[in-house]
Amino acid sequence: MNASEFRRRGKEMVDYVANYMEGIEGRQVYPDVEPGYLRPLIPAAAPQEPDTFEDIINDVEKIIMPGVTHWHSPYFFAYFPTASSYPAMLADMLCGAIGCIGFSWAASPACTELETVMMDWLGKMLELPKAFLNEKAGEGGGVIQGSASEATLVALLAARTKVIHRLQAASPELTQAAIMEKLVAYSSDQAHSSVERAGLIGGVKLKAIPSDGNFAMRASALQEALERDKAAGLIPFFMVATLGTTTCCSFDNLLEVGPICNKEDMWLHVDAAYAGSAFICPEFRHLLNGVEFADSFNFNPHKWLLVNFDCSAMWVKKRTDLTGAFRLDPTYLKHSHQDSAFNIFLTDGLFHVSFQHWQIPLGRRFRSLKMWFVFRMYGVKGLQAYIRKHVLLSHEFESLVRQDPRFEICVEVILGLVCFRLKGSNKVNEALLQRINSAKKIHLVPCHLRDKFVLRFAICSRTVESAHVQRAWEHIKELAADVLRAERE
Amino acid sequence: MNASEFRRRGKEMVDYVANYMEGIEGRQVYPDVEPGYLRPLIPAAAPQEPDTFEDIINDVEKIIMPGVTHWHSPYFFAYFPTASSYPAMLADMLCGAIGCIGFSWAASPACTELETVMMDWLGKMLELPKAFLNEKAGEGGGVIQGSASEATLVALLAARTKVIHRLQAASPELTQAAIMEKLVAYSSDQAHSSVERAGLIGGVKLKAIPSDGNFAMRASALQEALERDKAAGLIPFFMVATLGTTTCCSFDNLLEVGPICNKEDMWLHVDAAYAGSAFICPEFRHLLNGVEFADSFNFNPHKWLLVNFDCSAMWVKKRTDLTGAFRLDPTYLKHSHQDSAFNIFLTDGLFHVSFQHWQIPLGRRFRSLKMWFVFRMYGVKGLQAYIRKHVLLSHEFESLVRQDPRFEICVEVILGLVCFRLKGSNKVNEALLQRINSAKKIHLVPCHLRDKFVLRFAICSRTVESAHVQRAWEHIKELAADVLRAERE
Repeated sequence: MNASEFRRRGKEMVDYVANYMEGIEGRQVYPDVEPGYLRPLIPAAAPQEPDTFEDIINDVEKIIMPGVTHWHSPYFFAYFPTASSYPAMLADMLCGAIGCIGFSWAASPACTELETVMMDWLGKMLELPKAFLNEKAGEGGGVIQGSASEATLVALLAARTKVIHRLQAASPELTQAAIMEKLVAYSSDQAHSSVERAGLIGGVKLKAIPSDGNFAMRASALQEALERDKAAGLIPFFMVATLGTTTCCSFDNLLEVGPICNKEDMWLHVDAAYAGSAFICPEFRHLLNGVEFADSFNFNPHKWLLVNFDCSAMWVKKRTDLTGAFRLDPTYLKHSHQDSAFNIFLTDGLFHVSFQHWQIPLGRRFRSLKMWFVFRMYGVKGLQAYIRKHVLLSHEFESLVRQDPRFEICVEVILGLVCFRLKGSNKVNEALLQRINSAKKIHLVPCHLRDKFVLRFAICSRTVESAHVQRAWEHIKELAADVLRAERE
Repeated sequence: MNASEFRRRGKEMVDYVANYMEGIEGRQVYPDVEPGYLRPLIPAAAPQEPDTFEDIINDVEKIIMPGVTHWHSPYFFAYFPTASSYPAMLADMLCGAIGCIGFSWAASPACTELETVMMDWLGKMLELPKAFLNEKAGEGGGVIQGSASEATLVALLAARTKVIHRLQAASPELTQAAIMEKLVAYSSDQAHSSVERAGLIGGVKLKAIPSDGNFAMRASALQEALERDKAAGLIPFFMVATLGTTTCCSFDNLLEVGPICNKEDMWLHVDAAYAGSAFICPEFRHLLNGVEFADSFNFNPHKWLLVNFDCSAMWVKKRTDLTGAFRLDPTYLKHSHQDSAFNIFLTDGLFHVSFQHWQIPLGRRFRSLKMWFVFRMYGVKGLQAYIRKHVLLSHEFESLVRQDPRFEICVEVILGLVCFRLKGSNKVNEALLQRINSAKKIHLVPCHLRDKFVLRFAICSRTVESAHVQRAWEHIKELAADVLRAERE
């Protein structure tokens, strides 16, 4: 395919994409297919000779679309939102064309530099403490990770390296293994599974602190665990506090646990994967209070800030903590602008960085283009309006649920997630969810809160409106009536 | 921006991309900017009100392009290629629009299913042993990772879990830390830095086996290390063999070291990040001989197989080894088609998988669409022709170098990389590279081979032709004459 054919096919694809987005409401949100549906529909091996573009685009509609869960349908209320906006898609086209791999400054200066500035823009939108920003050639800075899982892992590894160095400096006879055996990390029992996985990968113990009645981590429970573990000879070194848990969007009490982490010399990582986007609105910024105690902070613009996947924003107060955990410099990645001692450059009060030392992979796309396009084409006010609309819609759903005495709201609704259930057994709620997801008019996923099976209604789509929420609720009510009738019979 | 504005702007962006690709030869391959160039050019904070698309696209040319290293210029001969093709860009547009997050089958069945089939297509192109394929509901399978670094890390973590389980099954009193202290992984001294980093992250020792005169790992050196380490009480558990090293595209001797790994019950991971794409040509397939001894194999279609970044293909013989290392199943990710014991489904002899358990991040894009578009629009023959053209061009450059008695070829040229230098000191070669990269007509990076400073000439761009190689050589010869003259003076 040459450039002139790309001009033609690219424009056809733009129309296909626009048609898909415009018509998505008419597609069934969850597919009808059974596992294994796809393989029989396509050849067992790649063709020797080229297929035509027409064949392929026809197959998209015939083979792919019937198996797609439409995350951007206004009837999709499952998991959490994944961002989608036209400006981000335009930027991604440009990113694909430039196609640079931005592991170092020299590998494509614009890629590294725009990222440092966009992370500052975003940090300022959130009113992050200045210590986290790049601009003043301080010690902090931001980086785009692929996912919150990677951010948590990177933070844990940095914390692990730091504590090992500190303990070995004090007691040079200690081996790494002897230290690692005693290291213990913490999160609330409501934290995302990726935290447990980070502990697993890092080869350290991870303990879950029991959350309180609002599913929040509090000082007392943390203090208790720390005292018990220290008495047992363990070394607390790392804590993940979650702002907006995946299960129910609860918030750990940062103002309580933050100072404890600082006092105990534990790395505090704050994971606000979903909720973080809301902090650009002044009325939600208080939820971030206490971030000043953190060593690292992360949230996903690719969830709720209209920047298509992947774009997970992570800041650290001391960037040498990250680079110290990863730094290796083979000759083929050296370049003349590199300060080999710190890999950081000071020019007119600015510095540049090799982001390869901030992350797990070496390669990286020019992802900051997506942030640049989205922030500029929406403006801060446009982004705030978007967040506010979603929060309004979740409260609208909440009030519908509250008006129906058969249902209960399970957790305070703070942002765009409503956790609700039929008053009654788990079995009846499981039956309700089963009916909802079998009918496939809307799509939801459940969670467990303590021993309760709970339905999660997350405002997800960019195009969801009050009418969709109302229709979804009418549908849920009908199915609930069916379930309750079936139970009585 | 609504769908109708996206139709207009999307088509403008298609033209911008086509113009960029068509005109890339006219752009200076390496930018003139100094570190910190970008920040003064843009505002210190995001705008409150939206900017126009015109402003943004004008700024792309004014602010971004002057700082871009043009990886797809036919005068870019640095690092290794990063893939770029129109079919992959078209697929990526579709991927962005569907915008599903494919962590489990239910999250978007087509995303998981197309990936398993595309990994089989690709495995068959390479004539991978059947044990690595998905299709026959055996124990193996393929997965798309973000990068070779992640593949190496995932393999190391799986191997670590496996050896810990094995040793604890035999001696239940052994703690994980006691085992980890003794674990030792190996690679050649020519392996990529990501291998060392995987050891660092995994908290295990990594030892570099001295390579032979052709920069290949051989049986004798490995055997020697193993005997020494076992005698010292260490536990060898993991080995990375590289096919096509980053420094000089040398090949570890898989037929020698593979059987040793099997005999010693060590996980063998084969990293062919760059070279792997060439194995789709029958005349290069012999370079993969010995992969039958491997537990896992990885290469990057996003390097040399025209599938834009990111797309790193990884296969394992026993997928439960991967999922065993990562598996955690919170309620919000459960779905009705899930077999909770194995997370694998058998339907008509087919299975499906939750790729979240195969990788570091939870989220994942619908990356297999890029493979599907590229494989179909090029056909296997088209892909082979592309590889062959690059290899021919590197041999053309090699023969130009060999005809000039001032120069030497440093390593046998097997695929698309030529390692060469001026006969003489490192200083003179450093001066030559300095002149080349200051002139900015072409772009190269160096490597160290033992104590020698060497220039790497990698055939990279999709559009590079003989004329570009000839011009590059003329340019290098002129600069070499300048360097040699300056040295004599």
